[in-house]
Amino acid sequence: MAQEFKFFLKKSQTSGGPRLGEISMARGLVATPAFMPVGTLGTVKTLTPEELQDLGAGIILGNIYHLYLRPGIEVITALGGLHRFMHWDGPILTDSGGYQILSLAPFRTLKEAGVTFRSHLDGSLHFLDPEKVVAMQEAIGVDIMICLDECPGYPAKEEEVRKAAALTLRWAQRSLAARSREGPALFAVVQGGMMPELRREQAQAFRELDFDGYALGGLSVGEDKELTWEMVAAVTPELPVDKPRYLMGMGTPEDLVEGVARGVDMFDCVLPTRNARNGMAFTTAGRVVIKNAAYTQDPRPLDEACGCYTCRHYSRAYLRHLFVSREILAYRLFTLHNLYYYFHLMARMRQAVATGAFAAFRREFYQNRSEGGNTRG
Amino acid sequence: MAQEFKFFLKKSQTSGGPRLGEISMARGLVATPAFMPVGTLGTVKTLTPEELQDLGAGIILGNIYHLYLRPGIEVITALGGLHRFMHWDGPILTDSGGYQILSLAPFRTLKEAGVTFRSHLDGSLHFLDPEKVVAMQEAIGVDIMICLDECPGYPAKEEEVRKAAALTLRWAQRSLAARSREGPALFAVVQGGMMPELRREQAQAFRELDFDGYALGGLSVGEDKELTWEMVAAVTPELPVDKPRYLMGMGTPEDLVEGVARGVDMFDCVLPTRNARNGMAFTTAGRVVIKNAAYTQDPRPLDEACGCYTCRHYSRAYLRHLFVSREILAYRLFTLHNLYYYFHLMARMRQAVATGAFAAFRREFYQNRSEGGNTRG
Repeated sequence: MAQEFKFFLKKSQTSGGPRLGEISMARGLVATPAFMPVGTLGTVKTLTPEELQDLGAGIILGNIYHLYLRPGIEVITALGGLHRFMHWDGPILTDSGGYQILSLAPFRTLKEAGVTFRSHLDGSLHFLDPEKVVAMQEAIGVDIMICLDECPGYPAKEEEVRKAAALTLRWAQRSLAARSREGPALFAVVQGGMMPELRREQAQAFRELDFDGYALGGLSVGEDKELTWEMVAAVTPELPVDKPRYLMGMGTPEDLVEGVARGVDMFDCVLPTRNARNGMAFTTAGRVVIKNAAYTQDPRPLDEACGCYTCRHYSRAYLRHLFVSREILAYRLFTLHNLYYYFHLMARMRQAVATGAFAAFRREFYQNRSEGGNTRG
Repeated sequence: MAQEFKFFLKKSQTSGGPRLGEISMARGLVATPAFMPVGTLGTVKTLTPEELQDLGAGIILGNIYHLYLRPGIEVITALGGLHRFMHWDGPILTDSGGYQILSLAPFRTLKEAGVTFRSHLDGSLHFLDPEKVVAMQEAIGVDIMICLDECPGYPAKEEEVRKAAALTLRWAQRSLAARSREGPALFAVVQGGMMPELRREQAQAFRELDFDGYALGGLSVGEDKELTWEMVAAVTPELPVDKPRYLMGMGTPEDLVEGVARGVDMFDCVLPTRNARNGMAFTTAGRVVIKNAAYTQDPRPLDEACGCYTCRHYSRAYLRHLFVSREILAYRLFTLHNLYYYFHLMARMRQAVATGAFAAFRREFYQNRSEGGNTRG
């Protein structure tokens, strides 16, 4: 267990229900439930670290699969570690790459020892195992490490899902043993496909081990949303109450609300930043797709209820002009807006949990969206 | 003559030599010699107006040909004019589009009345004349307007160059007559190809007319640099000393130095911003082309003598990683650096002119570059 990593549970309404907490790390405090912007390659796309800080980002994400391939672990360590390399001094969590190897690598062979795969960039052959993945995360100096896991596809045979879950558990044990120092926290990944019983079993097995937190992996991989939430609801009550739970890679605004409702503490997703680059804004009234011709002379901001830099200074007409002209400033302004929306949404949820008003918040959230149909894309 | 536009010549070493001045406009003061960043479509690519201001940009450029085609003059006026549209409250100069019609439009017919051309975006047919070009610039509320001109190609027959210069002069007279109000300044464009005598004649003809400033057009269109500077040196001594001279579209660091040496007050060029997006940095020691593998683990900033945001916080290794990964932050960081370099260079030249030390500055400028060969791209 990491020495400098502490999770304080401040409020918990019901077992498996919304929670309020705080993660304390050497590089900073993170109020939970928290959203973590994705900075796959050592940059949260389009933004500077100062802008992220101003937006209220307490922790950001990197991805060890991507960083291993480009620029390479040796480059980052030679430059003094990931924080110094990218000029971000807050906490960083790196994903292990288990999911990326499944979804990106054009070829892979998985054995007990580890995984052999080809790079999606140049086809070169690589081998990673749980020990190496921990060593790389330690080498670049991240604050929260994730164990290498096997993420089964969807749909998948029961046998394969069981095998992947068992291997993920054994690899997690190896990851725990592979740590060379007390500094960074280590999170395990709970797999188990769409089998609630298996997910519960996995969670129970993991709680016996000394991890700093627990990630829920292999969800939102193609299954119906109802099934996703059934899996989350099966797992969270089985995890230790005094450890943070992190729902990997899921993050529509609705996902954040539903995740918090089921006791999730941490989220990450490329949606706010990726959709920004596609000209899509998240607003209190729903989604605005800026290329829509209806916005050609629209003097309103993206979201009249929003206080972000973009909404304070720019009209939809200007943003549409930038976007259809493929101007880089468009991607920046949408990213700033979307992340502001996300952080604001998380802050409102923390407030709601703190005051015991989460159910009312959730009703209001959906009500605003159904009234905002006119600006939906 | 514009009421609120005033040029103060503070120091002039020799006739046709380096000058120090100040342009006073309703929206702000601009110290000359000045570099104007190019914001063709209502955005200086990748940057916010606040960033431009922090860099020290006193005035920026737009282009009426581009803005007319996209988003359209009616959109900008409906949104309250170009300043409000793009959230920039400093002075804006718009080029008339004479050069863009020559260089971009896939088809054009030029008559005494005006020019018919097809849009480079969608092939649609358009007609512009000097009156309409003034009216559009007035409509969107710019601070300095440029007369529609005919920019001959290069090389061109003497006859064509003479015809283009004569038409440009007649169009300038029509532009002057077309002004509907006293607010914005109006600059004429001196053409005349590579014929010094014709350029001188044009300048003499223009000085009889009541323009607020004079642009030198049709240069750096393919001719040798020596010829360019011969044309500039032919024109500047013939222009009124109490009006600013603007050398259109030229701006390597060497061009800025040589232009100032010949009495130019204003410059614009896409080079610092465009090259930024191609991963090329201007530095005191020459040019750095960041994709060069030599920078893979280079911990140094782009320019060790530079105090810009990029050089204060990022290594060449990180910038190279961002650039080869096509990360948008790379384009921002290079643009910030290059514009900082340009504004710093202009400030050093103003200082040198102020203290009568321009010749020494110019020698030192070239000496630094020849010593910096190791970082040249």
